[in-house]
Amino acid sequence: MIHDTCKHAIITLLTDFGTTDEYVGIMKGVILSINPCAKIVDITHHIDPQDLIQAAYSIKSSYKYFPEGTVHINVVDPGVGSGRGILALEAMGHIFLGPDNGILTLLLEDENISSIIRVENTSYFLNSVSRTFHGRDIFAPVGAHISMGLGIGKLGTPIDKKESVSLSIQKPHISGEGDLVGTIVRIDRFGNLITNIDLTTLKKLCIQDLKKKVGVKIGDHIISGVSKNYESASSQTPLAIIGSFDYLEIAVNCGNAGTYFMAKKGDAVKVIR
Amino acid sequence: MIHDTCKHAIITLLTDFGTTDEYVGIMKGVILSINPCAKIVDITHHIDPQDLIQAAYSIKSSYKYFPEGTVHINVVDPGVGSGRGILALEAMGHIFLGPDNGILTLLLEDENISSIIRVENTSYFLNSVSRTFHGRDIFAPVGAHISMGLGIGKLGTPIDKKESVSLSIQKPHISGEGDLVGTIVRIDRFGNLITNIDLTTLKKLCIQDLKKKVGVKIGDHIISGVSKNYESASSQTPLAIIGSFDYLEIAVNCGNAGTYFMAKKGDAVKVIR
Amino acid sequence: MIHDTCKHAIITLLTDFGTTDEYVGIMKGVILSINPCAKIVDITHHIDPQDLIQAAYSIKSSYKYFPEGTVHINVVDPGVGSGRGILALEAMGHIFLGPDNGILTLLLEDENISSIIRVENTSYFLNSVSRTFHGRDIFAPVGAHISMGLGIGKLGTPIDKKESVSLSIQKPHISGEGDLVGTIVRIDRFGNLITNIDLTTLKKLCIQDLKKKVGVKIGDHIISGVSKNYESASSQTPLAIIGSFDYLEIAVNCGNAGTYFMAKKGDAVKVIR
Repeated sequence: MIHDTCKHAIITLLTDFGTTDEYVGIMKGVILSINPCAKIVDITHHIDPQDLIQAAYSIKSSYKYFPEGTVHINVVDPGVGSGRGILALEAMGHIFLGPDNGILTLLLEDENISSIIRVENTSYFLNSVSRTFHGRDIFAPVGAHISMGLGIGKLGTPIDKKESVSLSIQKPHISGEGDLVGTIVRIDRFGNLITNIDLTTLKKLCIQDLKKKVGVKIGDHIISGVSKNYESASSQTPLAIIGSFDYLEIAVNCGNAGTYFMAKKGDAVKVIR
Repeated sequence: MIHDTCKHAIITLLTDFGTTDEYVGIMKGVILSINPCAKIVDITHHIDPQDLIQAAYSIKSSYKYFPEGTVHINVVDPGVGSGRGILALEAMGHIFLGPDNGILTLLLEDENISSIIRVENTSYFLNSVSRTFHGRDIFAPVGAHISMGLGIGKLGTPIDKKESVSLSIQKPHISGEGDLVGTIVRIDRFGNLITNIDLTTLKKLCIQDLKKKVGVKIGDHIISGVSKNYESASSQTPLAIIGSFDYLEIAVNCGNAGTYFMAKKGDAVKVIR
Repeated sequence: MIHDTCKHAIITLLTDFGTTDEYVGIMKGVILSINPCAKIVDITHHIDPQDLIQAAYSIKSSYKYFPEGTVHINVVDPGVGSGRGILALEAMGHIFLGPDNGILTLLLEDENISSIIRVENTSYFLNSVSRTFHGRDIFAPVGAHISMGLGIGKLGTPIDKKESVSLSIQKPHISGEGDLVGTIVRIDRFGNLITNIDLTTLKKLCIQDLKKKVGVKIGDHIISGVSKNYESASSQTPLAIIGSFDYLEIAVNCGNAGTYFMAKKGDAVKVIR
């Protein structure tokens, strides 16, 4: 079915496997055994163990910076070895693989989906499939075969979006007082607090001038206005900013907002007029 | 001696160098200076500093997922710059490089070895060899030359297995009471406790039904039976399982067995009838 | 202007982005969208956040192990989104990109520079440039275009070295008592204390025999002589050594000098006769 022995193609990996163990290296070995020309790019292997929401945001933020035709393998998989299914989907010219546990929810909700396949054709799996490491035994070989040109239609049955598991991911909402209420989705390496409040939603508040007319509230602290860059605040001073993925972030110039506010994932952030 | 300027070949790296320092990046620069087409895969750089046993298990678990012809460079090297030797060995169609300090012990014990060479030919080293960084000065260039097609016979003198340094790695044994006694070799990112008790040894106990007829003892705690997958136990409950590399593991479903049992490498694990 | 669709070229990345977030993976996606044949090598992404001095040493230590023609992208960028400039420079056949904040200081001071360009030509940036992630929006695409053969002269205006920002990096000096006084620049994964005292400077002290005639002082502790390798000291004993980059290091054989001396970056180290 596949005639070439090697195809130049990009495969990305996103997991919660960490890089201390040899798990990720082994997945790459399996991929290169099938497609020696694959170019493998690590998105991250440090998703907090089993944090599907963090993974869902990370996938959505990163895929569009890769060329069309890229195969994105996503393995955060607490239900590995149980009955949970596996999905392959095509959207915007990219192919995504992941367990059917909601990890692809944000794509399914927000992007233009061409097809969704329930992966069942074991002829593209490793010969022996373990109960605990489908990254190696299923996701890596299936992704490698797709990178060789295999259409995802060959992997199993098309399903409807409604038949897949979806995460209920809290979206920002308008409170009774007219504030925009969101949550911290992720705290990055610099201690920046990244919220689920995106620029499009912010604009729906019909605020003309973000720089002057809003306050951003975290705990009892109110930051006045949304800044243009980190250096808009003096050193060690908190600021709000629209981050590079168009989500509202709270940062501390030359400091760490995570420790400054003793913040954690899930904490509320409000935009008030 | 080598005519092509570039050969498509896979080189894996396993070290205890970490990824904070530039050591690994520099090894890759040296490799690509010699073979610009090498495809370099990190197995891990987070072997606990100088832990040769952990490295030995990691090498043995990972190499077989790569295609034949892969060159595996392994540098955990507390004796760097002293008189310790360097080995190149060919086994099962793969090439392995490592210091002669026991890091290749499990291969030498368990695999079908085609040849063992003591690496001495300095013409494949960097021109200047430091006392502290043979990863850069010897292992990277020698591995790159092998990936270009250099036979390991050109690197030095063939030796016998008995002439190489071997680690004494404790294997599981049957105690006076008839229990199978092993140890924890590694605690992975998820807190799973990976023992040195492999499925083949377990089967030698002639237990018909692992699910029902055994207990797995860690400290004072006895886990009843060996489960098929993580979700066989209720949330936050410990279970025993045969992991994806066919070693007995202790896990906690949706939790961390390492913290649950306050376990550490070297702790005893028993399989009792 | 660029005719090929793909060029085999090496691009290195050095940042303080960490690998937990998807930032580095996204930079690689941008690069491969422009040059699908680029070979991307991570030097490190674990520069201490915003530590330009550590970055400057790391760049200088690593670039020379890559082949000429390599493009080195360096992004430690506390002033991102403010008015700070961006530099491209060519030195010793290599190309370097970085913010004009001193990160390239050691190259500018010590190496033979062919040209320095202030990067201003937005036609090689992503279409939309954020205020907070120039790694993705400017450095990655510009580096990828250079790897495709774009001369750095096309990126902007040539400037003189004196027009660029330079860090004041403390060099070792001779004290009133005739001692050589340096500082700890970095503590590596093994706990080795790497100083800014290089072999050339040490030799200027005109000491015939480093092994016997000097003491290396850290805090109140004096280490006698400079050793040839780690095993020259007994286990858990401190020693001084010339490291693999020709800088004086303090190590503890089979131990960790960082914890042994409770040392930190910036601490003084003296070489006394």
